[in-house]
Amino acid sequence: MSPLLESYAAGRWVRAAGDGEPLLDAATGEEVARFPTGGLDFAAMADHAKKVGGPALRALTFHERAGLLKALAKHLMARKEELYALSVRTGATTRDTAVDVDGGIGTLFSYASKGVRELPNDTIVLDGGTERLGKGGTFVGQHLYASRPGVAVQINAFNFPVWGMLEKLAPAFLAGLPSIVKPAAQTAYLTEAAVRQIIESGILPEGTLQLVSGGPEGLLDALTVQDSVAFTGSARTAGILRRHPNVLDGGVVLGVEADSLNCSILGPDVTPHDPEFDLFVKGVATEMTVKAGQKCTAIRRVIVPEAMADRVVEAISARLAKVTVGDPRNPDVRMGALASLAQRNEVRKAVEALQAGAEIAYGDPDGKALGTTLLDGDPERGAFMTPLLLRARPGAAEPHDVEPFGPVSTVLTYDGLDSAIELAARGKGSLAASVVTHDPAVARTVVVGLAPWHGRVLVLDRDDAGESTGHGSPLPVLVHGGPGRAGGGEELGGVRGVLHHMQRTAVQASPDLLTAATGRWTAGARRVDSGVHPFRKSLADLRIGDTISSAERTVTLEDIGHFAEFTGDTFYAHTDAEAASRNPLFGGIVAHGYLVVSLAAGLFVDPAPGPVLANFGVDGLRFLTPVKAGDTIKVALTVKQITPRTSADYGEVRWDASVTNQEDQVVAAYDVLTLVAKTWPPSE
Amino acid sequence: MSPLLESYAAGRWVRAAGDGEPLLDAATGEEVARFPTGGLDFAAMADHAKKVGGPALRALTFHERAGLLKALAKHLMARKEELYALSVRTGATTRDTAVDVDGGIGTLFSYASKGVRELPNDTIVLDGGTERLGKGGTFVGQHLYASRPGVAVQINAFNFPVWGMLEKLAPAFLAGLPSIVKPAAQTAYLTEAAVRQIIESGILPEGTLQLVSGGPEGLLDALTVQDSVAFTGSARTAGILRRHPNVLDGGVVLGVEADSLNCSILGPDVTPHDPEFDLFVKGVATEMTVKAGQKCTAIRRVIVPEAMADRVVEAISARLAKVTVGDPRNPDVRMGALASLAQRNEVRKAVEALQAGAEIAYGDPDGKALGTTLLDGDPERGAFMTPLLLRARPGAAEPHDVEPFGPVSTVLTYDGLDSAIELAARGKGSLAASVVTHDPAVARTVVVGLAPWHGRVLVLDRDDAGESTGHGSPLPVLVHGGPGRAGGGEELGGVRGVLHHMQRTAVQASPDLLTAATGRWTAGARRVDSGVHPFRKSLADLRIGDTISSAERTVTLEDIGHFAEFTGDTFYAHTDAEAASRNPLFGGIVAHGYLVVSLAAGLFVDPAPGPVLANFGVDGLRFLTPVKAGDTIKVALTVKQITPRTSADYGEVRWDASVTNQEDQVVAAYDVLTLVAKTWPPSE
Repeated sequence: MSPLLESYAAGRWVRAAGDGEPLLDAATGEEVARFPTGGLDFAAMADHAKKVGGPALRALTFHERAGLLKALAKHLMARKEELYALSVRTGATTRDTAVDVDGGIGTLFSYASKGVRELPNDTIVLDGGTERLGKGGTFVGQHLYASRPGVAVQINAFNFPVWGMLEKLAPAFLAGLPSIVKPAAQTAYLTEAAVRQIIESGILPEGTLQLVSGGPEGLLDALTVQDSVAFTGSARTAGILRRHPNVLDGGVVLGVEADSLNCSILGPDVTPHDPEFDLFVKGVATEMTVKAGQKCTAIRRVIVPEAMADRVVEAISARLAKVTVGDPRNPDVRMGALASLAQRNEVRKAVEALQAGAEIAYGDPDGKALGTTLLDGDPERGAFMTPLLLRARPGAAEPHDVEPFGPVSTVLTYDGLDSAIELAARGKGSLAASVVTHDPAVARTVVVGLAPWHGRVLVLDRDDAGESTGHGSPLPVLVHGGPGRAGGGEELGGVRGVLHHMQRTAVQASPDLLTAATGRWTAGARRVDSGVHPFRKSLADLRIGDTISSAERTVTLEDIGHFAEFTGDTFYAHTDAEAASRNPLFGGIVAHGYLVVSLAAGLFVDPAPGPVLANFGVDGLRFLTPVKAGDTIKVALTVKQITPRTSADYGEVRWDASVTNQEDQVVAAYDVLTLVAKTWPPSE
Repeated sequence: MSPLLESYAAGRWVRAAGDGEPLLDAATGEEVARFPTGGLDFAAMADHAKKVGGPALRALTFHERAGLLKALAKHLMARKEELYALSVRTGATTRDTAVDVDGGIGTLFSYASKGVRELPNDTIVLDGGTERLGKGGTFVGQHLYASRPGVAVQINAFNFPVWGMLEKLAPAFLAGLPSIVKPAAQTAYLTEAAVRQIIESGILPEGTLQLVSGGPEGLLDALTVQDSVAFTGSARTAGILRRHPNVLDGGVVLGVEADSLNCSILGPDVTPHDPEFDLFVKGVATEMTVKAGQKCTAIRRVIVPEAMADRVVEAISARLAKVTVGDPRNPDVRMGALASLAQRNEVRKAVEALQAGAEIAYGDPDGKALGTTLLDGDPERGAFMTPLLLRARPGAAEPHDVEPFGPVSTVLTYDGLDSAIELAARGKGSLAASVVTHDPAVARTVVVGLAPWHGRVLVLDRDDAGESTGHGSPLPVLVHGGPGRAGGGEELGGVRGVLHHMQRTAVQASPDLLTAATGRWTAGARRVDSGVHPFRKSLADLRIGDTISSAERTVTLEDIGHFAEFTGDTFYAHTDAEAASRNPLFGGIVAHGYLVVSLAAGLFVDPAPGPVLANFGVDGLRFLTPVKAGDTIKVALTVKQITPRTSADYGEVRWDASVTNQEDQVVAAYDVLTLVAKTWPPSE
């Protein structure tokens, strides 16, 4: 008997009682593993996550968590062949497996990178700027995101047993949430293998990842406020989860990413002679056959201009005819098996339903000829089927309602762009749409028209085709999800996917206490002159609020004239008194904004070698009051935020710069960004 | 008989059949109006909103919509006395009415202002920067928010009949969504009066606001994908709405803001001699009595150090003893009536339940003495009650579960900050919390500890008390909502509240087609040299992509030395070859970043008077490659975004600036912000 899959619960591998149910190889029908039934203590698992995993994780900064994700990605990358060997048993070709395994590992790398580059080296995230809530500036507001002291439960679909887990794990982990992973039974052996690699690595803190090999019954009963469930799968199962009392009344947050009736639209500008025609045909055929069409983002509806329908059907059919189907162990096979015979039955039933409104344009719905066309494989034991292209009858409802979760698409025709968008919208909300066009006006109209109905819209043309990742590929840096039928959820999207796991809160306080609460200096808070120029302090010695209040400098007409001549910036407002007097905003000669910030730097800089290594940028510079000849300026430069870099011996210091004139009006406000050594002199 | 309230549906005022049910004055018991029962065609209303109101609204830019909100705010402000006169019948004192009416109008003003300052003068909103999706830069991603072609249904609570409507209407309207407003019956006459003022003004496009005076039965049946419901009220009603099939399976988005067991914590640092002690006591007493405690943000749990409990109870009781209760028409009355006798019964029942775990410390739960203490008013006909302070028994569960929606709070004690945070969390998620402290460490610990459980946290101390708006006041610029028991929703928060009504979509395209789709120039897209320097073009003539590709300039060692001397920025990396050679990032003398951008301006500027009026700022400046003596730089300046100002004869132009060296490496990248005249020469 094949091995019984185990769960990883509360710090150990747990073997359920009983023999479990057999899981069969998709192509050969041989038993691969056995799937346990029941027996886990979900309450203990949730408790372990909250008492052990969560606190350990939230003791780390975002940058430290990102570092662990990167180490994990490298670990899995080094051992991916093991996963490839197992993946073929799910019916996946090597290309399909790359999407699952390499795609999953790539998502870890992407989050590791985003976590360092776009999140602070801290445990909270500030959202937006400070809001002044009173005229005096003593009462201010700031939004921030904080980690939830809960657990993230993942309920995944069978089609991407590795990617599905990792794309949910990475953002939750970065957000400070431990995960409990519940894979779909059919391919759970692959998820179990990946989790074993992760646990054996010892990279993730104990309690941040647990695995449920078994049914989900009772899992949601163990959850409460601060816990969340991220579900990927069918709308039917999503409906069951939505009805759980802990979701309805118990404060458990449920996110759903459901299969949807995604479409691809051929632009009205495209003729058969344009490269876009071939791109369109190739895109449709690829989406139909990758993973044997078992992708929630696959193109189910092919929307083309009426006049182009025949040629499109012909071209797609010709392409599909070249797709070799069979056992994915055979390297010549382009399309492997569906996940199981049961799954194939589901698809066949869906195709039957579709035929009420569409007719078969290409393919063999009952698989009668399968035995003669397969490249290896037994059509009775392996879940094989050929790709199927249908053509909708005018006005048919079925293509907008019935989803065949396999290598099946239906061609529909439109008459005018508005009708194309209306057809797309009849899908009632989808994960992804694409439009193939080279016309800027078509791109604008279709993107704006499709956007409210989709989580992602791809515009494909000759210019991006070479680098395009295609219609069906969710990317870690872009949101994945969609409204309505697609479930209404949103995952990934870089930092967006992290913030979805956190609670946004508005904090109101005095500037001093807001500075204390957030760790970022707030305008109006105390500026501290410690007697030492802050440019002489290393990262270890610098404190939020440390300030240099500069000497003054009077800006003369000669300064302005000289700067104009020297830089070449002889704009009339700096050089021509009469013309400048007619400028509606200045009414006379003013100093260049660049002169003001250059002089300010001259006022605040400490010239000798020291811990400040470089000024690498300026953010949010605004010139608020014109500086005229004779005005005297000074600058206050205050440490606003300190971000040590984990992988360097220096870090980033963000300074608040405020340049004022002799009447204490702010003439320029901005953030100065510097790199500062962690210690000084450097310990060599 | 008093007037039967009317609905505003599909462009006209509709009077239902029948006499309806009486609505009684909260203080006198006299009939104010009658509330209709049934009879509205909700499907026709939703259809009207989608076919008439939505398209008209979405044809306007955000700035135009903001302009209408401002006009509406002014219109209502001029007529607010009418609303005040009616508001007293809800039991509200003048101060209570100010929160409702002026608070609502203030929310309109705030959104009008945010809409112009923080949203583009366009119909879509870009979210974040462009993501490069391929190494060659030919395939890029951009998130954007698009308006939903649906309707926003508001189901409001009885306590703020004007603010409740306007705080939901303003963000939905800005987002391009028409609203259908369904006020709670008890105070619906005040909402009806406000809607009449709005409709009569003719300011809002027809179909963008409809009113349901009647029961909600069947309202959600008329909704579908792209529609949303924003509900404020009890957790029980929220549960009913969550169970509607159109919410569970139909793609209708439901947002809930529910009453919650908000708390206020007295910091362990506060002694009775600190000003914070009085601020705490005053805050609790105020929240108990404003609006007779009928606020979903009111303080229900008063969490104090064990040792301070007696003094706190004493001080709050003393303060409550001075609160005069009675008919709000009497100007000496500090606290008016509850909304209805039924509402008072509910509160009394809740107090009974609370008494299982707490005892009365102040007040008259049964109202036995009401007859003798009221300032006007008949305790049998008016829904009067005195404030009630309870004191919890150690470990009692009731204060964390039972919500008395009236002037009632319970004092609980803590031992250590962690236990204070744990007590707060036992409320299972609340709208607002406050902590009164002057200690920065306490502020940090409590804010971070409370944040995941709350939508808003107020830190009150001597410094912000003068300008603080208090524990219970939602502000338009800060998010309002909370996790768990508070419903899990989020409203307001400035632009955040607008974006909640829109769909976020990731768009993938070539830079040229992304530029076309978004209306913002994308790095990598075509730069257009039209032969005319773009500084000579008015806003009417400028096009996205217009570019000036500058001449070159070689930066000499003399330039760097001169700039150092002139500006005073003699940082060693610019002046001391030997020291600079030891800088780990430069390895030799480099030009000042400010010199580079100053020279770049000299290269791109067109000096003669023209449509470009001023450079008002710079965004996202990054110095990417050091510029050394002898390097030759040039700059490409490209129109990235054009934002006409509605209220001025100029607009903002954002330019992409890219400074490159002789090896085509980017040495500095930034956005230059200018003001440009709409026409040139100005039409005078």
